[in-house]
Amino acid sequence: MKNPTKKPKWVVEKEQGKKAEAAQTLWLFGLHAVRDALLNPKREKLRLITTLNARAKLEDAIVASGMEPEMADPRKFPAVIDPGSVHQGAVLEVRSLDWGDLESLAMGDGVHAPRLILLDRVTDPHNVGAILRSAEVFGARAVIAPRHHSAPETGALAKTASGALERQPYVQVRNLSDAIVQLQGMGYLVLGLDGEAEQTIEAAMEGRRDRAVALVLGAEGPGLRAKTRETCDALVKIRYFSGFGSLNVSNAAAVALYASQAEG
Amino acid sequence: MKNPTKKPKWVVEKEQGKKAEAAQTLWLFGLHAVRDALLNPKREKLRLITTLNARAKLEDAIVASGMEPEMADPRKFPAVIDPGSVHQGAVLEVRSLDWGDLESLAMGDGVHAPRLILLDRVTDPHNVGAILRSAEVFGARAVIAPRHHSAPETGALAKTASGALERQPYVQVRNLSDAIVQLQGMGYLVLGLDGEAEQTIEAAMEGRRDRAVALVLGAEGPGLRAKTRETCDALVKIRYFSGFGSLNVSNAAAVALYASQAEG
Repeated sequence: MKNPTKKPKWVVEKEQGKKAEAAQTLWLFGLHAVRDALLNPKREKLRLITTLNARAKLEDAIVASGMEPEMADPRKFPAVIDPGSVHQGAVLEVRSLDWGDLESLAMGDGVHAPRLILLDRVTDPHNVGAILRSAEVFGARAVIAPRHHSAPETGALAKTASGALERQPYVQVRNLSDAIVQLQGMGYLVLGLDGEAEQTIEAAMEGRRDRAVALVLGAEGPGLRAKTRETCDALVKIRYFSGFGSLNVSNAAAVALYASQAEG
Repeated sequence: MKNPTKKPKWVVEKEQGKKAEAAQTLWLFGLHAVRDALLNPKREKLRLITTLNARAKLEDAIVASGMEPEMADPRKFPAVIDPGSVHQGAVLEVRSLDWGDLESLAMGDGVHAPRLILLDRVTDPHNVGAILRSAEVFGARAVIAPRHHSAPETGALAKTASGALERQPYVQVRNLSDAIVQLQGMGYLVLGLDGEAEQTIEAAMEGRRDRAVALVLGAEGPGLRAKTRETCDALVKIRYFSGFGSLNVSNAAAVALYASQAEG
């Protein structure tokens, strides 16, 4: 029987949406992450809590940001982040950065052939943080992940990203296969990384280094999901030396990005 | 005044040596790490403790190893490893693998130009574990680290190495600069990675891809120590796309290994 007191679905969804929006703040922690966010004019900053010591170390960044830090006793630091997080006496509440939509991010700059990294259920923040750093260093336009089963933007992710989260677009999409189809429509060559693939990434890139390329990586163990594999233009592997072992996913992403760019 | 009851230095050192030797066992944990060690005939295995469930999952490997597992209650698992370690019901006490001396490891096989990775105070087990995996995949002969200020061979390192610790030589030397000089004497070209270097690794490898090459990486932040920098034949950087950011050390090691091998 239908529950007469049950709220209509659209009301529930709207409420959930508002709740999610309100929860869309995160606490960054650690001197490096807090400094980079303070110096990022695009980052919406809400609350800064520091010890006297950390305040002195961050002084230039605090002045630049125009924020008024709340003081905290190092022995009774507010429990806004997970216990055990190495905050170094500084935490900053911020909103997620708005990187805009996939289409504008995926557009090239007309100079360099654009590169994108797509992550299929890579959830470990250490790996995603390292991937954001590599994406920045090798000039990938964005790192794309599905909204569910991905590493959320958190203080821990920001810390392992070592500043890259402030500069490198990290965008969550509703559905990864839909995003792949959209990119293909824009002219992207979409290559799925798979250690069992026949073709190497070097062979797949041969004569196509001026193409827009998206590299798709799955989680270690399960790899790419069936739907993702089917949607990619080709499955490729990194040219390995030995038949043993496998690369950590962030290492595979770095080498794949490098291999897709290096002059042939 | 000299303490008359103080033991002579050589006695203290001998005692410390014996203690270190006795302590030279470690507990591996987790199904993957325990299975790989059980199946490794070169690994000296001392005690295996499993739950009934884990025993069933490891049955083939336990039979192959000839070990008699001690049974443990999953709710009262023995506290031989750090609390919070994801042991999955299986722990195995082992001795460190003996990979022999640097000189024999550094000898080529006469087919492939040998590659080595040297780590200058890289202490994070997650990074070293990922580097061991990349070293295996790209066929480096060994990963070399100083005895002090390096990631010790532990269960945590074995877990992030995902099996590579059983197959990929990880050798600790007394002094890294001495090891570099020794390698140079054997004909190695020793390249230190440094984001500020003028020369790229690609340029340094040009026309020298058939040389024996050792790649030296420092810890993030401090980088290579002054003594290490001076001893290297050249300092090189990875060909970056952007001027921003920096690679995680394991990502830098993977790309450097790949870049040193890729056909020119």
